[in-house]
Amino acid sequence: MKRLSLLGSTGSIGTSTIDVVAAHPGEFRVVALAAGRNLERLAAQAVRLKPDLIAVEREDDARALASRVPAGTQVVSGRDGLIAAARHPEADMVVCGLVGALGIEPTYAAVDAGKDVALANKEALVAAGAFVVARAAETGAAILPVDSEHNALHQCLRGEDPAEIKALWLTASGGPFLHWSHERIRAATPEQALAHPTWVMGPKVTIDSATLMNKGLEVIEARWLFGVGPDRIRVVVHDKSIVHSLVEFVDGSFKAQLGVTDMRHPIQYALTYPHRLKTPLPPFDLVACGPLHFAPPDTERFPCLGLAYDALATGAAAPAVLNAANEVAVASFLAGRSAFYDIPAVIHGALKRHRDAPAATLDDILAADRLARKTAADLLASGVQS
Amino acid sequence: MKRLSLLGSTGSIGTSTIDVVAAHPGEFRVVALAAGRNLERLAAQAVRLKPDLIAVEREDDARALASRVPAGTQVVSGRDGLIAAARHPEADMVVCGLVGALGIEPTYAAVDAGKDVALANKEALVAAGAFVVARAAETGAAILPVDSEHNALHQCLRGEDPAEIKALWLTASGGPFLHWSHERIRAATPEQALAHPTWVMGPKVTIDSATLMNKGLEVIEARWLFGVGPDRIRVVVHDKSIVHSLVEFVDGSFKAQLGVTDMRHPIQYALTYPHRLKTPLPPFDLVACGPLHFAPPDTERFPCLGLAYDALATGAAAPAVLNAANEVAVASFLAGRSAFYDIPAVIHGALKRHRDAPAATLDDILAADRLARKTAADLLASGVQS
Repeated sequence: MKRLSLLGSTGSIGTSTIDVVAAHPGEFRVVALAAGRNLERLAAQAVRLKPDLIAVEREDDARALASRVPAGTQVVSGRDGLIAAARHPEADMVVCGLVGALGIEPTYAAVDAGKDVALANKEALVAAGAFVVARAAETGAAILPVDSEHNALHQCLRGEDPAEIKALWLTASGGPFLHWSHERIRAATPEQALAHPTWVMGPKVTIDSATLMNKGLEVIEARWLFGVGPDRIRVVVHDKSIVHSLVEFVDGSFKAQLGVTDMRHPIQYALTYPHRLKTPLPPFDLVACGPLHFAPPDTERFPCLGLAYDALATGAAAPAVLNAANEVAVASFLAGRSAFYDIPAVIHGALKRHRDAPAATLDDILAADRLARKTAADLLASGVQS
Repeated sequence: MKRLSLLGSTGSIGTSTIDVVAAHPGEFRVVALAAGRNLERLAAQAVRLKPDLIAVEREDDARALASRVPAGTQVVSGRDGLIAAARHPEADMVVCGLVGALGIEPTYAAVDAGKDVALANKEALVAAGAFVVARAAETGAAILPVDSEHNALHQCLRGEDPAEIKALWLTASGGPFLHWSHERIRAATPEQALAHPTWVMGPKVTIDSATLMNKGLEVIEARWLFGVGPDRIRVVVHDKSIVHSLVEFVDGSFKAQLGVTDMRHPIQYALTYPHRLKTPLPPFDLVACGPLHFAPPDTERFPCLGLAYDALATGAAAPAVLNAANEVAVASFLAGRSAFYDIPAVIHGALKRHRDAPAATLDDILAADRLARKTAADLLASGVQS
């Protein structure tokens, strides 16, 4: 039985993970849950899963929750609580479904404690990939990607020599604005950007998908997960999201992973690796899915993708700056306070100002993250030119 | 340096293999060549490759060739000569590109001698899979499939547990008659059947592709290569032959291998496994290839596919009978002596007559093969009802 700690248990990845756990009785035990402020869902999860530990964001929420959880479940709060869940001594694997830069420290803590990590949080690798990957190598912690694209790459790379990779091909759905003109995208509303054509995901990731920043972050993530430079990571638009990604090898062969667009598939893969367990989910129908198309991405209408490649080429703290500025700009867009193309403009501005931010330690990265957030907020407040 | 014995060196697979060898100087040495009666090509190959041994079909051809080959190259003939090439003491790997049932005995001889086999000959496994696979397991000989479909499956199964296969999906181009009506196919000429839309192959294989018997033989071959029953082997029509085949796993995930339609790719894979070497061949372009379609096969217009599943279900010598009857019927069709739908009619008749042929030994299989050929010829001579 594999013992799991779920970080971000009430979110999209967390609830899907609990579905996977429920579908395989006797395979998993959830020993810790960490979530933000969705106390109702968290209390229900606690009753159902009887974890040893629950971590919430705020201390008063922890107190309120304490009376609603099973006897034997400890409730903690704040950053320390989250880290305690990530390092929980009983956990074999940490499922990191936290959104945004919040995932950086707990992911590092988990690999530092030698825990295998099923990683759905992109930012831990985008901002701090060098540190997370190096520490995982030292402690022997495995990082199993949950993102459907990296999960697909992981599957295609089983039994293969990474030195024989010619290129990693990340597929992009293209998001809701794939066929929109530049002018129309310029006036896009949050509601329009949230209408993702193929995947049901949280709001931040869905906006990232509309800007193609999601794919940019994935390029950076792939660099750390698979040790492959940006010149060997490509993006191809595949509107149906059926082929989740492909690997091209030096001998000209391509391998692809495909299937239905349901995050419970990659989550289960990460949880059960190296084994594959039967799934109760409906099977993929290769004929019914219709023809599969591939097209090059348009970096003019979707400048965030190019910004991500630039940040990866710059290295050091630049990806952390990119990610932090993006988070601030996306939140502002979602709140209706700025326009769609303010997102790349803010990121561009932040990258320009913090090219040389130090990146010698994880604390440097966290400092660059904070600095970029402030810069992004300032740029938005002063009416960034989009 | 890997030392190769090439059986069928002047044919499509043989010449492609020599291309692969030439593209990787220092990687391979060809120690033996075996071919039929194309003495001009064989003499040129001998001068270029300087093998230790050459085997030809006829004794007089061997005598004629002896004066045209380099000093130190021995020329032998007949069945014994072919077997000597298959068991050549210097060979690490035997590339079996022989066409038809002729490949059965040398393939068995090669694995019996503990040689790894790069196998392009379907019939060795179709007719005698149980014996070839069992003997290979005993001697430790690896069988690396060269057929693009099985090669694709082999690639998709690297690093995977065969017990976790839900189904193998063999892709079929559908051949030149994919969109033809039953009536039009009935009147098809050899020339029309030889116009394969995607692959350049020898004439026998190309006709098998037009009848879909090629896919039927591949279903049987897959059963022996991967130890998966016919209920877990499916065929899907994919007209572009870009996705070479797919594996569906119990967890709902599919893996596919794709690339250009050039046999030098799977040949190189088999020759270099477990390594992948760079190729001078043009790269595959995922965007330029256009949309990828998948459709169910039509077993009414293409009854050979169903006959192959039937023969596999019957087991014992039935697949050998199927294969032998098919070879005779295809030769007759190619010679313009019978009609396209005589092919399944002859196979059906032969299978009906020899359901209970013994199959306890490899000699039984070879006897069933001979018997089925005679029956097929008789059926054709008496004007089989198609």
